Amino acid sequence: MSKKYVYLFEEGNAKMKALLGGKGANLAEMTNIGLPVPPGLTVSTDACRTYYENGKRINDEIISQIHEGLNVIEEKTGKKFGDRTNPLLVSVRSGAAFSMPGMMDTILNLGLNDKTVMAVGEKTENLRFAYDSYRRFIQMFSDVVLDIPKFRFEAVLDKYKDRNGYENDTQLTVVDLKDIVDEYKSIVKKETGKEFAQDPNEQLIESINAVFRSWNNARAIAYRNLYDIPHNLGTAVNVQSMVFGNMGEDSGTGVAFTRNPATGEKKLYGEFLMDAQGEDVVAGIRTPKSIDELKEIMPEIYEQFDTITKNLETHYKDMQDIEFTIEQGKLYILQTRNGKRTINASLKVAVDMALEGLLTEDEAVLRIDPKQLDQLLHPTFDGATMEMATPIAKGLPASPGAATGKVYFTADDAVKAAASGEKVILVRKETSPEDIEGMNISQGILTSRGGMTSHAAVVARGMGKCCVAGCETVKVDEELKIFAVGDIRILEGEYISLDGSTGKIYKGSIKTVEPTLSGDFAKLMIWADSKRVLGVRTNADTPKDAETAISFGAEGIGLCRTEHMFFEENRIPVVREMILSDNKNQRQKALDKLLPMQKSDFKGLFSVMKGKPVTIRLLDPPLHEFLPTDEQDIVKLADEMQMAVNDIKEVIHSLQEFNPMLGHRGCRLAITYPEIAQMQAQAIIEAAIEVIEEENTTIIPEIMIPLVGIKAELDYVKKIVVDTVEKIMAEKGKKIDYLVGTMIEVPRAAVIADEIAKDADFFSFGTNDLTQMTFGFSRDDAGKFISEYREKEVLTEDPFQSVDVEGVGKLVDMAVKLGRETKPELKMGICGEHGGDPKSIEFFHKIGLDYISCSPFRVPIARLAAAQSALRASGQQGSDLSK
Amino acid sequence: MSKKYVYLFEEGNAKMKALLGGKGANLAEMTNIGLPVPPGLTVSTDACRTYYENGKRINDEIISQIHEGLNVIEEKTGKKFGDRTNPLLVSVRSGAAFSMPGMMDTILNLGLNDKTVMAVGEKTENLRFAYDSYRRFIQMFSDVVLDIPKFRFEAVLDKYKDRNGYENDTQLTVVDLKDIVDEYKSIVKKETGKEFAQDPNEQLIESINAVFRSWNNARAIAYRNLYDIPHNLGTAVNVQSMVFGNMGEDSGTGVAFTRNPATGEKKLYGEFLMDAQGEDVVAGIRTPKSIDELKEIMPEIYEQFDTITKNLETHYKDMQDIEFTIEQGKLYILQTRNGKRTINASLKVAVDMALEGLLTEDEAVLRIDPKQLDQLLHPTFDGATMEMATPIAKGLPASPGAATGKVYFTADDAVKAAASGEKVILVRKETSPEDIEGMNISQGILTSRGGMTSHAAVVARGMGKCCVAGCETVKVDEELKIFAVGDIRILEGEYISLDGSTGKIYKGSIKTVEPTLSGDFAKLMIWADSKRVLGVRTNADTPKDAETAISFGAEGIGLCRTEHMFFEENRIPVVREMILSDNKNQRQKALDKLLPMQKSDFKGLFSVMKGKPVTIRLLDPPLHEFLPTDEQDIVKLADEMQMAVNDIKEVIHSLQEFNPMLGHRGCRLAITYPEIAQMQAQAIIEAAIEVIEEENTTIIPEIMIPLVGIKAELDYVKKIVVDTVEKIMAEKGKKIDYLVGTMIEVPRAAVIADEIAKDADFFSFGTNDLTQMTFGFSRDDAGKFISEYREKEVLTEDPFQSVDVEGVGKLVDMAVKLGRETKPELKMGICGEHGGDPKSIEFFHKIGLDYISCSPFRVPIARLAAAQSALRASGQQGSDLSK
Repeated sequence: MSKKYVYLFEEGNAKMKALLGGKGANLAEMTNIGLPVPPGLTVSTDACRTYYENGKRINDEIISQIHEGLNVIEEKTGKKFGDRTNPLLVSVRSGAAFSMPGMMDTILNLGLNDKTVMAVGEKTENLRFAYDSYRRFIQMFSDVVLDIPKFRFEAVLDKYKDRNGYENDTQLTVVDLKDIVDEYKSIVKKETGKEFAQDPNEQLIESINAVFRSWNNARAIAYRNLYDIPHNLGTAVNVQSMVFGNMGEDSGTGVAFTRNPATGEKKLYGEFLMDAQGEDVVAGIRTPKSIDELKEIMPEIYEQFDTITKNLETHYKDMQDIEFTIEQGKLYILQTRNGKRTINASLKVAVDMALEGLLTEDEAVLRIDPKQLDQLLHPTFDGATMEMATPIAKGLPASPGAATGKVYFTADDAVKAAASGEKVILVRKETSPEDIEGMNISQGILTSRGGMTSHAAVVARGMGKCCVAGCETVKVDEELKIFAVGDIRILEGEYISLDGSTGKIYKGSIKTVEPTLSGDFAKLMIWADSKRVLGVRTNADTPKDAETAISFGAEGIGLCRTEHMFFEENRIPVVREMILSDNKNQRQKALDKLLPMQKSDFKGLFSVMKGKPVTIRLLDPPLHEFLPTDEQDIVKLADEMQMAVNDIKEVIHSLQEFNPMLGHRGCRLAITYPEIAQMQAQAIIEAAIEVIEEENTTIIPEIMIPLVGIKAELDYVKKIVVDTVEKIMAEKGKKIDYLVGTMIEVPRAAVIADEIAKDADFFSFGTNDLTQMTFGFSRDDAGKFISEYREKEVLTEDPFQSVDVEGVGKLVDMAVKLGRETKPELKMGICGEHGGDPKSIEFFHKIGLDYISCSPFRVPIARLAAAQSALRASGQQGSDLSK
Repeated sequence: MSKKYVYLFEEGNAKMKALLGGKGANLAEMTNIGLPVPPGLTVSTDACRTYYENGKRINDEIISQIHEGLNVIEEKTGKKFGDRTNPLLVSVRSGAAFSMPGMMDTILNLGLNDKTVMAVGEKTENLRFAYDSYRRFIQMFSDVVLDIPKFRFEAVLDKYKDRNGYENDTQLTVVDLKDIVDEYKSIVKKETGKEFAQDPNEQLIESINAVFRSWNNARAIAYRNLYDIPHNLGTAVNVQSMVFGNMGEDSGTGVAFTRNPATGEKKLYGEFLMDAQGEDVVAGIRTPKSIDELKEIMPEIYEQFDTITKNLETHYKDMQDIEFTIEQGKLYILQTRNGKRTINASLKVAVDMALEGLLTEDEAVLRIDPKQLDQLLHPTFDGATMEMATPIAKGLPASPGAATGKVYFTADDAVKAAASGEKVILVRKETSPEDIEGMNISQGILTSRGGMTSHAAVVARGMGKCCVAGCETVKVDEELKIFAVGDIRILEGEYISLDGSTGKIYKGSIKTVEPTLSGDFAKLMIWADSKRVLGVRTNADTPKDAETAISFGAEGIGLCRTEHMFFEENRIPVVREMILSDNKNQRQKALDKLLPMQKSDFKGLFSVMKGKPVTIRLLDPPLHEFLPTDEQDIVKLADEMQMAVNDIKEVIHSLQEFNPMLGHRGCRLAITYPEIAQMQAQAIIEAAIEVIEEENTTIIPEIMIPLVGIKAELDYVKKIVVDTVEKIMAEKGKKIDYLVGTMIEVPRAAVIADEIAKDADFFSFGTNDLTQMTFGFSRDDAGKFISEYREKEVLTEDPFQSVDVEGVGKLVDMAVKLGRETKPELKMGICGEHGGDPKSIEFFHKIGLDYISCSPFRVPIARLAAAQSALRASGQQGSDLSK
């Protein structure tokens, strides 16, 4: 038996989305629950995949199944393709499993030709309508199937309107339209060398062919890349008998949402036009009427429609976006789908539906796309101003939010401008730790190099600050203080605007709107917290970050990067003094100056966290990161340090590495310079003891040793830490509990986790570095080829954004199992960027981690994603999140 | 019951080396087979470890066991510690499981004090001998226990000799010696503030204490680092009753080998002195006599000794190094051990013993240390000239052999000098692929940066050329053409000499000697080949390398690095043209020029290999490696390419990476530029077809895709290769077999090896990169902290030299198992540097690889190590290789 490629609407249902596409599955579902859907069929996504395997040809088997299906439709409608008295007209629409606006969408009125146009005219007693439909059909078909630009046809239309002084298309007479059709056909002849296809079967197959082809057009590929949709799914095609909203005053067409998609308010929301086809509603030529007005114009139809929409919402348990047509007083439903909505509407609809009893709390929690929460927490562009702006370039959407400000090219300049009250956007080729201060006072950051996990991106996300990174079309000259995109030049002090959620860059200033958190948000998060198993901590280096995170519901600090504290203006000279020391004594003197500073940092954190766990990582980055790179700064430093410029250059040179990522950093530093780890351990424990005494609270500091790959590394550094801590406690006469654990971020650590677990009180997976080393991808360099990999389908996702379950995940899972073999109660968390990614969180839940830690602004996302993971793992299925 | 720390000689045997040390175990063994060994005891290595655990104190339990043992010795000898008529004197010697010349060695005559010296004088009727012994004892004890410099004592001795006009120590009178003893004792008083210890028990415990302490002196640690000996083993101490070779003309002492340690000739070989103590033989003050002369002086003793040595050799089944003493006409054996020998002697002894029936062939094969074979294959310094030279610096022994020549600082200068007939040493901060030509014509290479697997080291080993790498005390200024070590300055054109086996650098020229391969070597390798299971291939990029490897017994090429071919003088411009192309057409044009060059390379290789398998890896390094780095070269290139300097700099800048190791290289290049892989596949297959036709042979080319970490990477590049190959074969009308496989060198590849195996015809483990990524160690940068790690015992071995079985090995083993799950017959080899390391080879044998591949000069080592691995795995145990 041959495979089934074509399904009548009555043969499908809502669950067959992968095969029939979202649109087809819903048409089938609606047909089967008895709604007035015009008969039709769906050519499956399978057929599309076969088309591509087959060298972009629709094979005969599929064509014959299409004809069989058409026969049934002909029977049902009593119409026939190409019939001279009662011809069948159909629409052809693409419909993938995921909604894809980038693809070809619709051809209407297919089946019209020089003969059937007369039959339609006669049958509807409206020859003008028939020719208008034919003209529209030729134009649509030419556009999407024959690739003839629309403007060719529009020019003809305009010519007739101008010549006759018409204002609207409706003023065109039947004679005008007949002439226009002739002119359209000669355009086709001229452009393609062939007559416009008269055979409806040929029209149909060519249209289906065009839909399949459109799956791989540039926009569609770009869209899929943007939304992580696999490229090999294919699209389905829906062929449906036409109904006409433009058959006179008893006809019309419209779209409606069962609730308000902007606010979530429970009230039918939509618009319609009488005597119009679907495209007229969206085309903006005539102003549509609000759906309420339908009540007055056609009260019975409104009643019937209202009932249907309520049923559909109850049936699908979600807010529906419905297309309908009234043909000569009869209502048809053409499409229903879960309606797209703002995050505020999303929250209100979910919470309302749960309160109405339509959803359970679990279902409501599952209903929200955690990624969308981001919009709630960051400024956005004002919709109105936004409309007018055209982006000049697009980089990576590295940290969400919208920002507008004057461009500055160095951290120093940015700081000065901000101090004088300006709103600043920092533009750099790439940022380095020296830029922290400048980033901190900026509205947003733009870089021309680096990926989603470059320095700029990671730090900006941590700060909750808008960042567009790695925008390679932007050429930055930091010396001349100018950047260029093609011919556009932006000088220091000029305004630009950044959208960190899309990566778009705009010239000039765009108004931004601050977010507000609704009661629905709070209610939903309470429900979510009651479902989740994973703890949610935050990555925070300062009391300010920690406060933000706590306000978003963080339950502890999973990662405090002590080096970030080293970059502050009053500290960096001391840090440099330490690095430039050529003996231990000199280094110790510098460390003695750093000690009280670090101690006060930690006191601040402990104090804000009020007894919640705080994991502090010992110094991690290679020392050269703390030294200046350009000549001017080196000379300045030489002055400050009273050293020869050449001596400083010598040190900088000696610290240079071919691959700093794999160089002298992490615990390797503590092994070379035990006195640094000693100072940090001392600062941590003294801070804890003092805050415990001052605030009468409990603190169990968690000291974390980074980059361990060898058991003896952990032992070596742990001994330094423990010896120091015990010494301090003995001196102070105060015993407190503390933990010493390690990052698992080097592949070798995952492989020997059973050994490492013997002397670690906890594991924290550093999945950023683990991803780098497991793939052999430098995250600072991989940006270029990762995007190429995604285009060529070598990678379906960026492994730095969502954890690579197959490879990196297997190592993490292995380490969890090995670690728990040694120590069943071993506490394990993850503090890489993946801690804020919902898909990754689902994996971390599955393999049994205790907590995830993410940047403060991702905490709500993590809480929701963790709850959803727990619900799904216990068998709950939310309705599909892709709408 | 308390633990046993002290063993009488009669309580041990040869197998207890770990506990009793090599010396103690042998003394026990000899005692038990009835040889005339002076009674004694061994304080175990356990006691030493306890000493360190105990804060460097010998605990009471051990002290009491020592006293119990001493009692037995006193009974046996009839002498007593401190006795005024018949005092017991003992020697105290260190003795670890591995021979360790860096450690404190011996104290003789312990037990002498102001009282017992008289008793000894009386008993031996030789008061002069007694006082001479006492003086020697004070000096030795002061040196090793009390840390008083020797020269203090020597000055006194010289004073007496000068004052009396003596030429020899033997002219000192008893009165002189008594005065000298008094002066010695006052030196001790002055230096330590205490009287010289008179209590023999105190003398003994302090001496044992000093031996334990010496385990961790700087020299001993350095020695262990050099020979990969773990630092936690500890040493044993042997306490043995003294016998005296200096009790007159019927006494004497000497050392002898059962065979000639330089040539292996089967003939007793050694020297002795009458009326002397052991140290006199080696001290060089008196000239010792050849052992043959003993036959004339004391024929019976000689006979007895000869018989004993023969028995010892038969007993230990190895050439013995024996110390003996004759005390008043009675022969004592003080020590026997496997004798150190040259590699030539080693081969002759093993082969002879097998032919004599003393060893089986298997045992003979197991007897040779594969690492020692290196000496056979490279030039060495002439022994005589060598003696005189003092090294000025020491770097890493990166590639063995000896070299002498004039210093040049750039590849160009070196090439020019060599062309005019000079012997050249290339000195660089670090080498890069641009230096290949200069390296090739040099006698040896010296670099101041980089580790054992830096570019210089890897390439030099491949060329079989002497290299000292990463010598950080050498300051190189390539512009000024000078290098300095401390105050020593070496200018261009001055002579230096390098020892690549020790890492030592000498000023001036030292004569080198070319190696010769003996018949014993050939015979042993034939035996070895018949035992081994692992195939042995070579890493070779040129027909010359391949020829060398074949002459050393290589069975195929496991790795041909095609990029090395790109660096040749006539090719690099074309390669650069390809890289600087800004579109595919331009790039294709350059590739078309490269095609015939690559094809002729491959034809050369196939032709030399005569049907043996050849694995060719597609282009691997990042493209920036092919572009020049310094201004001058860039300007030159701009000229050649008729491009603007700034445009070239732009390209170079755009190719720069933060971590090139983890950047755009390997299969990532082939995915971005499929045309490069196409060109290479075409060159390979056309070359194979042509050589098959021209030489009427069989060739199955193995095309290897590097750096695969994702299954789709392999698929993508494999498709390019297969499409190209099939197209060429169709064009040529000739079908040949070929394989397409992949490197497993990215941790992720090991983790998903089951997936990768689905479409790979073979795996080749690239353990260099795998080690880098698994540890997170950049091999170019890790040199510095790896040596620190070894000092601090964080690492016991350099994982780039010997495969890290626990971590990297676990991944390799996992990949082997996963790969064979998918494809049981999957061919697997290893082509990293570890392929030439005996310890690693043993591991690769164990996990079931099919072959190892190493640089040509390591092939014999690999063959022997593979044979030994197979023998050991089947239960054969060789005698210990550490002598």
